[in-house]
Amino acid sequence: MSLRTVKKTAESIRRLEIQGAKNIAKAAVKALKKVKETEYSEAAYILTEARPTEPMLRNILNYISHKMDEGYSLKESISFATDLMNASEKRIIEVGKEKIFNNYRILTHCHSSTVMSILKRAWAEGKRFEVFACEARPLYQGRITARELVKAGIPVTLIVDSAARYYMNDFDLVLVGGDAFTAEGYLVNKIGTSMIALAAHEALTEFATAIELLKYDPVTGKGKPEPIEERNPKEVWEKPPKNVRIKNPAFDVTPPDYIDFVITDAGITNPFNVQQLARENYPWMAK
Amino acid sequence: MSLRTVKKTAESIRRLEIQGAKNIAKAAVKALKKVKETEYSEAAYILTEARPTEPMLRNILNYISHKMDEGYSLKESISFATDLMNASEKRIIEVGKEKIFNNYRILTHCHSSTVMSILKRAWAEGKRFEVFACEARPLYQGRITARELVKAGIPVTLIVDSAARYYMNDFDLVLVGGDAFTAEGYLVNKIGTSMIALAAHEALTEFATAIELLKYDPVTGKGKPEPIEERNPKEVWEKPPKNVRIKNPAFDVTPPDYIDFVITDAGITNPFNVQQLARENYPWMAK
Amino acid sequence: MSLRTVKKTAESIRRLEIQGAKNIAKAAVKALKKVKETEYSEAAYILTEARPTEPMLRNILNYISHKMDEGYSLKESISFATDLMNASEKRIIEVGKEKIFNNYRILTHCHSSTVMSILKRAWAEGKRFEVFACEARPLYQGRITARELVKAGIPVTLIVDSAARYYMNDFDLVLVGGDAFTAEGYLVNKIGTSMIALAAHEALTEFATAIELLKYDPVTGKGKPEPIEERNPKEVWEKPPKNVRIKNPAFDVTPPDYIDFVITDAGITNPFNVQQLARENYPWMAK
Amino acid sequence: MSLRTVKKTAESIRRLEIQGAKNIAKAAVKALKKVKETEYSEAAYILTEARPTEPMLRNILNYISHKMDEGYSLKESISFATDLMNASEKRIIEVGKEKIFNNYRILTHCHSSTVMSILKRAWAEGKRFEVFACEARPLYQGRITARELVKAGIPVTLIVDSAARYYMNDFDLVLVGGDAFTAEGYLVNKIGTSMIALAAHEALTEFATAIELLKYDPVTGKGKPEPIEERNPKEVWEKPPKNVRIKNPAFDVTPPDYIDFVITDAGITNPFNVQQLARENYPWMAK
Amino acid sequence: MSLRTVKKTAESIRRLEIQGAKNIAKAAVKALKKVKETEYSEAAYILTEARPTEPMLRNILNYISHKMDEGYSLKESISFATDLMNASEKRIIEVGKEKIFNNYRILTHCHSSTVMSILKRAWAEGKRFEVFACEARPLYQGRITARELVKAGIPVTLIVDSAARYYMNDFDLVLVGGDAFTAEGYLVNKIGTSMIALAAHEALTEFATAIELLKYDPVTGKGKPEPIEERNPKEVWEKPPKNVRIKNPAFDVTPPDYIDFVITDAGITNPFNVQQLARENYPWMAK
Amino acid sequence: MSLRTVKKTAESIRRLEIQGAKNIAKAAVKALKKVKETEYSEAAYILTEARPTEPMLRNILNYISHKMDEGYSLKESISFATDLMNASEKRIIEVGKEKIFNNYRILTHCHSSTVMSILKRAWAEGKRFEVFACEARPLYQGRITARELVKAGIPVTLIVDSAARYYMNDFDLVLVGGDAFTAEGYLVNKIGTSMIALAAHEALTEFATAIELLKYDPVTGKGKPEPIEERNPKEVWEKPPKNVRIKNPAFDVTPPDYIDFVITDAGITNPFNVQQLARENYPWMAK
Repeated sequence: MSLRTVKKTAESIRRLEIQGAKNIAKAAVKALKKVKETEYSEAAYILTEARPTEPMLRNILNYISHKMDEGYSLKESISFATDLMNASEKRIIEVGKEKIFNNYRILTHCHSSTVMSILKRAWAEGKRFEVFACEARPLYQGRITARELVKAGIPVTLIVDSAARYYMNDFDLVLVGGDAFTAEGYLVNKIGTSMIALAAHEALTEFATAIELLKYDPVTGKGKPEPIEERNPKEVWEKPPKNVRIKNPAFDVTPPDYIDFVITDAGITNPFNVQQLARENYPWMAK
Repeated sequence: MSLRTVKKTAESIRRLEIQGAKNIAKAAVKALKKVKETEYSEAAYILTEARPTEPMLRNILNYISHKMDEGYSLKESISFATDLMNASEKRIIEVGKEKIFNNYRILTHCHSSTVMSILKRAWAEGKRFEVFACEARPLYQGRITARELVKAGIPVTLIVDSAARYYMNDFDLVLVGGDAFTAEGYLVNKIGTSMIALAAHEALTEFATAIELLKYDPVTGKGKPEPIEERNPKEVWEKPPKNVRIKNPAFDVTPPDYIDFVITDAGITNPFNVQQLARENYPWMAK
Repeated sequence: MSLRTVKKTAESIRRLEIQGAKNIAKAAVKALKKVKETEYSEAAYILTEARPTEPMLRNILNYISHKMDEGYSLKESISFATDLMNASEKRIIEVGKEKIFNNYRILTHCHSSTVMSILKRAWAEGKRFEVFACEARPLYQGRITARELVKAGIPVTLIVDSAARYYMNDFDLVLVGGDAFTAEGYLVNKIGTSMIALAAHEALTEFATAIELLKYDPVTGKGKPEPIEERNPKEVWEKPPKNVRIKNPAFDVTPPDYIDFVITDAGITNPFNVQQLARENYPWMAK
Repeated sequence: MSLRTVKKTAESIRRLEIQGAKNIAKAAVKALKKVKETEYSEAAYILTEARPTEPMLRNILNYISHKMDEGYSLKESISFATDLMNASEKRIIEVGKEKIFNNYRILTHCHSSTVMSILKRAWAEGKRFEVFACEARPLYQGRITARELVKAGIPVTLIVDSAARYYMNDFDLVLVGGDAFTAEGYLVNKIGTSMIALAAHEALTEFATAIELLKYDPVTGKGKPEPIEERNPKEVWEKPPKNVRIKNPAFDVTPPDYIDFVITDAGITNPFNVQQLARENYPWMAK
Repeated sequence: MSLRTVKKTAESIRRLEIQGAKNIAKAAVKALKKVKETEYSEAAYILTEARPTEPMLRNILNYISHKMDEGYSLKESISFATDLMNASEKRIIEVGKEKIFNNYRILTHCHSSTVMSILKRAWAEGKRFEVFACEARPLYQGRITARELVKAGIPVTLIVDSAARYYMNDFDLVLVGGDAFTAEGYLVNKIGTSMIALAAHEALTEFATAIELLKYDPVTGKGKPEPIEERNPKEVWEKPPKNVRIKNPAFDVTPPDYIDFVITDAGITNPFNVQQLARENYPWMAK
Repeated sequence: MSLRTVKKTAESIRRLEIQGAKNIAKAAVKALKKVKETEYSEAAYILTEARPTEPMLRNILNYISHKMDEGYSLKESISFATDLMNASEKRIIEVGKEKIFNNYRILTHCHSSTVMSILKRAWAEGKRFEVFACEARPLYQGRITARELVKAGIPVTLIVDSAARYYMNDFDLVLVGGDAFTAEGYLVNKIGTSMIALAAHEALTEFATAIELLKYDPVTGKGKPEPIEERNPKEVWEKPPKNVRIKNPAFDVTPPDYIDFVITDAGITNPFNVQQLARENYPWMAK
């Protein structure tokens, strides 16, 4: 009975009604509130299975489990988890906003709630800058980005994804969010990110990701690959001619050589040091 | 009176009802058939103005003018021009098909009639290969490519533009067409081409363009820039929110360092030698 | 008297009858079993001198010394050392096998017992892949690799060392072992490794090393160079003409920029973080 | 009263009568000796303001503050700070001298007291090498370097800054000091350093910086930029024609990709690991 | 008697009272006016020896010789040479000015009369842009550039040579002149040029040289090296301490990979095609 | 009857008793001397088939045919062909020797008679330099190089192929011969060449090929691939274990980006201009 909400949430996650690493983690934690302690394992399993490619979800469920192992009740542990997510969100914005300067021209890709928060905070503090947003085919999340920024009064220009290199020399910073970060130092993010990062590298334009350490994926430290979700081809072309195959990978992988710095809730670092920071800040991840 | 067809064709070119460097040049030449010799200059001016960014159109009109200077009638000169275009088309296919090998995995971008002809000829001669096509936002010409290839029986997979790097290591060749080629050795082609070329270069995947020497733009040899058309923002987002600016460049510019070879109607060459080949083959261009 | 075995082992190491970082370390530890505690320093000195270029040997002797300093007997300390080596070997295989995927085409160079174990374990678990082996002039250890793999049923192709780049675009992974790893993040391995790594980098093919943290060389952290052994020219050409000089370096040094990830007994990491992992896992190394 | 010396020292620092990160820090600490404990905050503030761009100065003042928080008197804390600076200086020389080899040809830029000490120590220990020094416009500190080396008997050649690439292939090592090191892994040093580093990278010549961990700037970990001092244009051109603008940045920023290794007082490391070493060795920095 | 002027001019060239490839060539041609036909060989030899590193001087003397071989008098031949130099100067300005666009930020190095003419012509035609000039140690020709531009009303900023990379991302174009161009495609120009070109390449900033085909050096096509003048050390440091060696190369060599386009009197081209253009336009060079 | 010698020579070529592009061409021409004019086509066909991968052989046979078309007898045509080969050999040595300087350290790969001639000529003219030779597995032609150089008194050091990068920073020039040159600007030469060229490029060491224009392959201009010979696996490992596959490609392909200059019989040029030079010098190739 008490797993009903969990199952429902899991279903929403599976159907992509809930999207974005952080939203998924928050929804999952919320769904756990009605769960009995004895059911925790089963609930965590159900939620994890709904989106096996989300390290933040896995990490936060592990954290709750870890807290229960330390003797806290499930309720208390959920509370710790909520606090941890809120605190890390707050801190990453505090750090990230410092990287936005007056007169900056910034490119972003897709829609990242962390990047949105950083930009809006910097703007609210009086910094004046301009944003270009790639539209992010196939689902056009770049339009959400554009709407949100323009609503906050931030000047924004939308371009097709493949125009990123055309304008690259005009940008001072490329800033994206992230879905996962690996032990090798790779960033997993919306398809197209790695190509934009490559173009930024070619043009000596700074490329940064704002990513909470809770998105570091500890299983990559054990050699496991970070799976790349293959999504519905209809997102790309609703009624393609017969025999035209469509491939629709949701993410790609940006190598550390193209990431100039990483904005985390534990401060600024370089991509090669993220593993170390995650292990130090969240020793329970190692388990 | 006799300029009516010319004006109508010019209008169709302006409205993009006629697209593609070669189609435009052919339509223009066709429209000239009803023109009197004394009107040629005016007719050529009208047609050129309809699309000032198309070197092939300009070149072929100059060629006709050059032939008339040599003493041929307009009719004869038009006939020479038609022959030249047909011959160069035939030759580029003959050369290009040799670059397609069995088991090749080829990426193409946008829709190039020259690339289509090369691939279909190679297939018709019994070579078996596979094509990936980028969709080419905003106008999805990649879908035209996919339709045309699948109709010819050639296996084709469609991907969003920003997925090109994700699959790049799997490709043996990236083959695109071209709208213009400059004295410096740069290729002007559909927006996104330069980013794909960069990703091909990064992955040591061969990148080639199939481009007739008639698309070499002699004015670039005189220092003039190759203009990049900025198109209607509605192509990108029909009803954007107020204050969201949209930029929609039609082309970008690929540097010669990322072009491994060039397929021309005068044979295979490297991008740094195209200027020389154009000048040798079409000395009238220099005028 | 009790140093006789030590001296004999040292001699075998010097004569290269015992080869490979791990085999040498194991033989040295075995030889210590008959040594009196009071003779330990002398014995360790004799063994170290037999091959001053082997950090694993030095590290394991230091570890024994460190354990004795903690109050354990030599016998107990030797037992700890043996356990440590066995455990780290086991763990690196567990981690490394995860990096081998179905349908992979893998290039390896020379003969690394760690790489062999990883590949055989992955095969034993049902993964199906193919290996290319460079012959590794002058001593053709690549033939040992080929023999061992083919015996395990793994498809293997042998090529001359200089053909590595010719096939590089076909590989999914280059996987090599290692003799030493430095504070700067450099890998010391069989001559030719750095050239293969460079070619892998050029082709965007993943390059990895499987190396136990016991091969991290702490003296490099103090500024000392990792010495490169210069071996007998006769290995290269038995009877060269008079006046032809022959140079025969045993190892070369691969910079971290060409190493995509590092497989260690403490998990997957990037080359820039190896120093940190070694210091954390083996604090006694710092002495 | 007791702040008079502090103010005087601050003034000397501001006027650049005292130059070099280490000299400034030492002078500041010396000036604190006459200060009362209750005045420490004010004194530290005055000194910091004299040169806000010097992390070593800020760090050492924080260290004193940290020691006082631990219960030590100001006098004792100053003594700790002095010891710390002396010890780190001694250690960085011990480590650095190991990186100088016989027959080396070394390029240095500007004048770094740490680099000078390393070179002189290596020479004193019998190593024989040769140094090229860039003159370091606009203030010609390269001449100080040349004078100092030639006085120590070390062969030295002076070149203009823009000749660095011309000779780069002849060098075995480029060795510079540093003013600051950031969380991202970037080195802040005399203008021109990054261009020399780029040229070294292009030529596969090793580029290293000798920099104490006390120059790591913890505020960069919080997202703050490392400010680049803009100095008096008269240093560049004393009497320029009217309307000629002059820009005179004192420093530039070298990315970690061009830094092959870092010589610190905690040993050799790579640029991506400096943040970690600083945080481990000086946990009080985090405050 | 009639060689007196020639000898005097040769002396002025040797003493660097006459500087710049074009000025030297013009002065030499002028000096020939009083020479008898029978003395031409001797006169040409004297002038060539005065500055053996100037291909333009050698080329123009060869051209005169070639014209005399064709049957023209010396006077007529000198007239042809003067016309040729004037025409090529005029044409290179016509071509070059097209490459300057409104709002451009342009970096130049040293003082090139061709670059000056191009910039001033573009400005005179109403284009509005901004120039940064490197000071060009040791002789500060950048100050001449700054003076000349500011006099023409063009905004100019002077920086030290080693600050070029610091500002590189802000520039749209780096434009320099040239002293010689080789068969391999290399540009010989003022020391520092190649380092600036490297930094431009790193930042994807366009780098161009404006160089007349008369500066192509045909002897490089025969394998001869382009000699690099080593100048008086006193230019670098008037009174250096004893034992400080000073090296003062006047030029360096920029590889074609860093030259995005070449502005010549025969139009725009790429560096790999300069040899071909020179041979076609000046077939007499081959002799 | 008269084809007997041709057939015998063809057989020797097929069996590799005659090796090297130039030796093969010379042997073929010699064999033609006994052939009747009416048999020429057949003879040429037999010889071409013996080694279809040798453009020089094909070119010289075409040249003879071309001369016969011009009305010369076979005997005269053969004489022209012999003269052409001799003259081009002589000229390439004249040009190439200029690129060898005193104190140079030169790396070569495999055995090229052209490179040998250039080095020996330079040495004979008094230049003093040193050569490193890669052994060139599997057939050790590097040993032939070493023998030949040492016999000429030139200091030579032999290394295994995979040690090329280890010593690369010490070299001033890498100089190799070539088997074929393509329209795209690629060099086809002994397996390993492209890897050495890559390492030279990485280290900013000049890489050059000495190759006669007769080795330019005109069929590559028509899109045909330059075939890479796959040789007997026994050359690599005489008695490999069962199931060990061996791949033995004879050549690899070096891209123009890694070739700093090309020494041809028509002078020095860059790789992108070779096609043009070949077409100009040998217009009969186009047929």
